[in-house]
Amino acid sequence: MVQSAEILSVGTELLLGQIVNSDAQYLSQQLSPMGINVYRHVTVGDNVERLKAALAECLQRADMVITTGGLGPTMDDLTKETVAEFFGLPMERDEATYAWLKDHFEKRGAVMSPNNAKQADFPKGSRILPNRNGTAPGCVVEENGKVVIVLPGPPVELHDMFENAVLPYLHSLSEDVIVSKILRFFGIGESALEYQLRELIAAQTNPTIAPYAGTGEVTLRLTAKCRAREEAEGLIAPVEAAIMAQVGEYFYGYGKDTLDIVVARKLLEKGRTLALAESCTGGMIAAKLVGYPGISEALLEGQVVYSNAAKVRRLGVKEQTLEQFGAVSEETAREMALGLRAQVGSDLALSVTGIAGPDGGTAQKPVGLVYIGLAQESGVTVKKLNLSGGRNRIRNMATLNALDMIRRALDKMDRNRT
Amino acid sequence: MVQSAEILSVGTELLLGQIVNSDAQYLSQQLSPMGINVYRHVTVGDNVERLKAALAECLQRADMVITTGGLGPTMDDLTKETVAEFFGLPMERDEATYAWLKDHFEKRGAVMSPNNAKQADFPKGSRILPNRNGTAPGCVVEENGKVVIVLPGPPVELHDMFENAVLPYLHSLSEDVIVSKILRFFGIGESALEYQLRELIAAQTNPTIAPYAGTGEVTLRLTAKCRAREEAEGLIAPVEAAIMAQVGEYFYGYGKDTLDIVVARKLLEKGRTLALAESCTGGMIAAKLVGYPGISEALLEGQVVYSNAAKVRRLGVKEQTLEQFGAVSEETAREMALGLRAQVGSDLALSVTGIAGPDGGTAQKPVGLVYIGLAQESGVTVKKLNLSGGRNRIRNMATLNALDMIRRALDKMDRNRT
Repeated sequence: MVQSAEILSVGTELLLGQIVNSDAQYLSQQLSPMGINVYRHVTVGDNVERLKAALAECLQRADMVITTGGLGPTMDDLTKETVAEFFGLPMERDEATYAWLKDHFEKRGAVMSPNNAKQADFPKGSRILPNRNGTAPGCVVEENGKVVIVLPGPPVELHDMFENAVLPYLHSLSEDVIVSKILRFFGIGESALEYQLRELIAAQTNPTIAPYAGTGEVTLRLTAKCRAREEAEGLIAPVEAAIMAQVGEYFYGYGKDTLDIVVARKLLEKGRTLALAESCTGGMIAAKLVGYPGISEALLEGQVVYSNAAKVRRLGVKEQTLEQFGAVSEETAREMALGLRAQVGSDLALSVTGIAGPDGGTAQKPVGLVYIGLAQESGVTVKKLNLSGGRNRIRNMATLNALDMIRRALDKMDRNRT
Repeated sequence: MVQSAEILSVGTELLLGQIVNSDAQYLSQQLSPMGINVYRHVTVGDNVERLKAALAECLQRADMVITTGGLGPTMDDLTKETVAEFFGLPMERDEATYAWLKDHFEKRGAVMSPNNAKQADFPKGSRILPNRNGTAPGCVVEENGKVVIVLPGPPVELHDMFENAVLPYLHSLSEDVIVSKILRFFGIGESALEYQLRELIAAQTNPTIAPYAGTGEVTLRLTAKCRAREEAEGLIAPVEAAIMAQVGEYFYGYGKDTLDIVVARKLLEKGRTLALAESCTGGMIAAKLVGYPGISEALLEGQVVYSNAAKVRRLGVKEQTLEQFGAVSEETAREMALGLRAQVGSDLALSVTGIAGPDGGTAQKPVGLVYIGLAQESGVTVKKLNLSGGRNRIRNMATLNALDMIRRALDKMDRNRT
């Protein structure tokens, strides 16, 4: 049973600051909820002696060391070789991996260089971890009661390998099953959420409850540890229900489902259509939704109407309204949403107009003032926001608020229907 | 003179994976061009004994250790105290800092808690580094020929303190001045750029030439070390000229000026106007340009025309064209750009249509096929791209290519005018 770990990242590019070490963060995020204590992150360059020294130090402190990086085909890539040397193990060719590599190159019409062949060599006796996103398999070496897991550096390779090969391995070491569930909330701050849940949090044992604040949203991770998955899920269910009874109003999704994904999926599932008219967000809402494959069925069009002329030309906003109330006003937001819906005929038409700054604010209309209009068959509603922060934070928060308005409207439509 | 350094980050939240260690990356980026070799990044939790052990190890290897984090007012924050204990120094109240802190809280109508007062205590004899963005000053401790620099964790505080207090300190240790200049290129890969500049790179001494590949772009950092700024600039100028003679065609900007910033600035400086019609990029180009304050003068409107109906309704694309050639075709891209320009009357009208995947590709039209149309007074051009990668990479690369087309058109307009 592994109880402690250290993350040992290998790569001169990290020490030069060319990339940020997101691998260490990712692995910590994965290990902590499993009850594995991460003592240290250590980063060294592509240098045998320094890597060997660091490996010795890490293994002295922790049960397990996970290395990231240094599995490529070049001479600089020496992590596997150094781990083998450290434990006094020879490197051995794995014929299955070699055949897979050869096939990989042949399928791409490329010739496998001798360099690439070294990606099929592993410390003798190690368990090989397949790489579905690259040519560098990882491996697990168990020696002297310690575990070294050797993983590739590119996040897309590392994440897939961790979830599909490392997790099953770690679970095989323990009789316990760990089940995690992430709940996502928007419209409530971290401290307000913690305050509302203070009794539940104080009483937490199994599952544990871990809050985390992202940009404009809060997530809760519930983690239970039991002998069987069903038992863990049985422990999580009542705690989740108690949380939802307190703050369910702000809940919008599970796991990795961000607001844009939830909204895109709901639109497609419910067969509803949407049109967007964005001023200060300037296309950010559309760009997020278009990240979802197949959204063209639901997102009939988007308008970036940052200029007054475009608001008049494309949405039929009255010049008089712009003159009397200004481009950033409840009246303009309302006319934008209504005009857009009339032209496009979508179920929902959303408008955003605001002052993102840094200039353009006044005492009456400060930077951060944003109006979001939402028109539907039943009429139009306008929400007023007073956001703080720099230009990009204001635009991001306006985008999230707009997505949340669409989400709430879609949920309501459903309820009215049934 | 400091020649080697290690970055020692302090914070349990890092080991839990709650935040990524961007401080270590930032400091490496700053130190490397100064000729300071960064041996290791080490992260430990908020724990006196582990921090003291790590400090001892780092100082054994390197001339200098920079710590980040653990300077807050809570009991968990113990970096300064641990550094003092490590060197056997007492903590001493700095009266000037204490008065500044008191004033800081009074101005905000808040009462300073006893906890906050500890932010005015430092290891005896240390040099205090003011914090302009928070209540946690940093400090420098010089002992036994080694240097420990203690900095706060929040990036906005760390960056300002580094640039305004740490850099002058490091320069005071050396008689040399270090001048860096970053050149940015688009449309050429890292290896092609390195190949074209191979003789210059092989001959580099002062300035040094360091290439770095970002998403779809490459940057070169030229760094010269001399006794005076003018001398360093004099060494950089001929190398920059030689680089531009080779690959100037792909150069688009200096320093932190990304393509969207360069395009937005050029539009405003030249008084030119732009309209956008985005299909697969779905508002990403508009959203990037709207990040630039004041862009409403130049960006007359954007259209997110992901559906065929919107292409017909908003841009006047002929239904026959869509039927005969498809939405992703040179013909559709051309009609989109021409239709948009006719309706809006902008100097430039740009259209994007493509297959971002993961579905929707065919043998004739694979995922990654993108057409970008650019209409101007002189006519319309269409660029065809075959991009690889996932949905988001394809959309990002299409966005960068579109911005580069606008940049090149703006440069050409200027030349034709004079």
